[in-house]
Amino acid sequence: MIALSGGVGGAKLALGLSKILPADEFLIVANTGDDFEHLGFYICPDIDTLLYTLGGVCNTETGWGRADETWQFMEELKSTNPEEAWFLLGDKDLETHRYRTAALGRGDSLTDVTARLAAKFGVLPRIVPMSDDPVHTHVLADMAGEERWFPFQEYFVRYRCEPRTVRIEFRGEASVSTALETALSDGPVAAVVVCPSNPYLSVDPILSVDRMSRLLRSSGAPVVAVSPVVGGRALKGPTAKIMRELGLESDVEAIARHYSGFVDGLVIDETDTESARSVATHGLSVAVTNTVMKSLGDRKQLAREVLEFAASLG
Amino acid sequence: MIALSGGVGGAKLALGLSKILPADEFLIVANTGDDFEHLGFYICPDIDTLLYTLGGVCNTETGWGRADETWQFMEELKSTNPEEAWFLLGDKDLETHRYRTAALGRGDSLTDVTARLAAKFGVLPRIVPMSDDPVHTHVLADMAGEERWFPFQEYFVRYRCEPRTVRIEFRGEASVSTALETALSDGPVAAVVVCPSNPYLSVDPILSVDRMSRLLRSSGAPVVAVSPVVGGRALKGPTAKIMRELGLESDVEAIARHYSGFVDGLVIDETDTESARSVATHGLSVAVTNTVMKSLGDRKQLAREVLEFAASLG
Repeated sequence: MIALSGGVGGAKLALGLSKILPADEFLIVANTGDDFEHLGFYICPDIDTLLYTLGGVCNTETGWGRADETWQFMEELKSTNPEEAWFLLGDKDLETHRYRTAALGRGDSLTDVTARLAAKFGVLPRIVPMSDDPVHTHVLADMAGEERWFPFQEYFVRYRCEPRTVRIEFRGEASVSTALETALSDGPVAAVVVCPSNPYLSVDPILSVDRMSRLLRSSGAPVVAVSPVVGGRALKGPTAKIMRELGLESDVEAIARHYSGFVDGLVIDETDTESARSVATHGLSVAVTNTVMKSLGDRKQLAREVLEFAASLG
Repeated sequence: MIALSGGVGGAKLALGLSKILPADEFLIVANTGDDFEHLGFYICPDIDTLLYTLGGVCNTETGWGRADETWQFMEELKSTNPEEAWFLLGDKDLETHRYRTAALGRGDSLTDVTARLAAKFGVLPRIVPMSDDPVHTHVLADMAGEERWFPFQEYFVRYRCEPRTVRIEFRGEASVSTALETALSDGPVAAVVVCPSNPYLSVDPILSVDRMSRLLRSSGAPVVAVSPVVGGRALKGPTAKIMRELGLESDVEAIARHYSGFVDGLVIDETDTESARSVATHGLSVAVTNTVMKSLGDRKQLAREVLEFAASLG
């Protein structure tokens, strides 16, 4: 089973899947378009959220960062580099970035570094970056009447997605990571699941990697996505806002249209039952269930239903 | 007034001096022979101890590191790089190293970086590195019957000065830092004070810098040292142990012999009153007082007496 995931929202389903699948049958492809260098550290927000979530050390209130974190480094940073203090780096979290930065500096691949971090956090399913080549998401957005390109984290964290999105671009020539390619050629894949991450900011960067969607499709596995939009809203993050800014309705039909051609089926929330037919008009099978994951039980339940849905399409 | 200082012991007197001298008449030359790169950070232990001590943010129990420090980064490090966890890096402290490393990487001089850090910590007297060129102290020492060269911090921290010292070497071609040279040419210097730091590990690296002792001597200012040895023991660190290993008596006479030719006078502790005469045989003036600095009052009192002693030799 292969899951494509961004950060917080995707990691919830990935955690549910990790609880019901044998570890060696589950591989998570993480978005790395958000990765950036900051204060001398190479930071991979989505990989870290996946590591922390599946490692059981994530701050469950925020959905990102470490549990029982302290912010002493950050407090100091405010007095030396206040203008750089917009990205929160916890004291524990920092060692992850330091370790990765040092290892990449020695020439290790992001795949290898991620595997070693997974071992540290006791994460058994494989988490692989979409590519070992850097890809950087940039957002053309309008801030105070002026359009400019924002590196992803500036748009997302520094300016809290406030500038109006005009266009999104993924910069960098990237090949599918070897680990993913090997996994795909190693044997049959039961399903490809697109987690309920932001389609534009978290999933599209993965699919933008050269040959990615073709390789995933050619595995022959059914591909299903879980809608990140429920009742016209995104449960987390700026998905709905971005959809409106891009001139789209923020509804499951727009999600279906976006993913059509790549996914075979879409899982939508009960709230959107009446949109099932319009999703089907885009050639997709539909499953309707509760997609709002509040408890660990919700995560496992959704994971189970997603896998059953995929199996029914196989 | 110019003080030469290493870490903890020297910083105590430097603090006392800073309390009684106008800030613009006080310059501290810090040993940088202990500086090293570790985990991707460029760490200057003696400069940091001076910054934290004079900035009033030092852990007064240990004499180094930050007050109210936490160790979350360190705890994490133990699980990723346990073999590199021998040098303690507190969460607050870390930002100092990160900031310095980034600035040096951009090509800033250590003098400039130190000045900016001093401003951050509200330190008014100038703290300047002995040189902007890297110098690295190495210790040839016998560990378990085998002699090998230890980079300073490995000897000092990792192996807690346990290997038997055979020889000490300062590696690197270093020029006196421009800030110090300017200060010396700018006007008369009232005194040069060698703080009660380890003569072999902390003061000798400073004096090993090309032209350093000549420049300090040619200022015409009286040069006085405060003995780091009291009653045959060092109050802090391995001074006495190293003296014995180098075949010296660990007493103030050996300190006098070591500094003779560079200093005009030596301040010794009351405990060593009876050694005053033997110090004088090395051509040095002697002042006897309490050199054991327990309170801030002690530090100021010693600072006052050292300055008076120097003035009496002027």
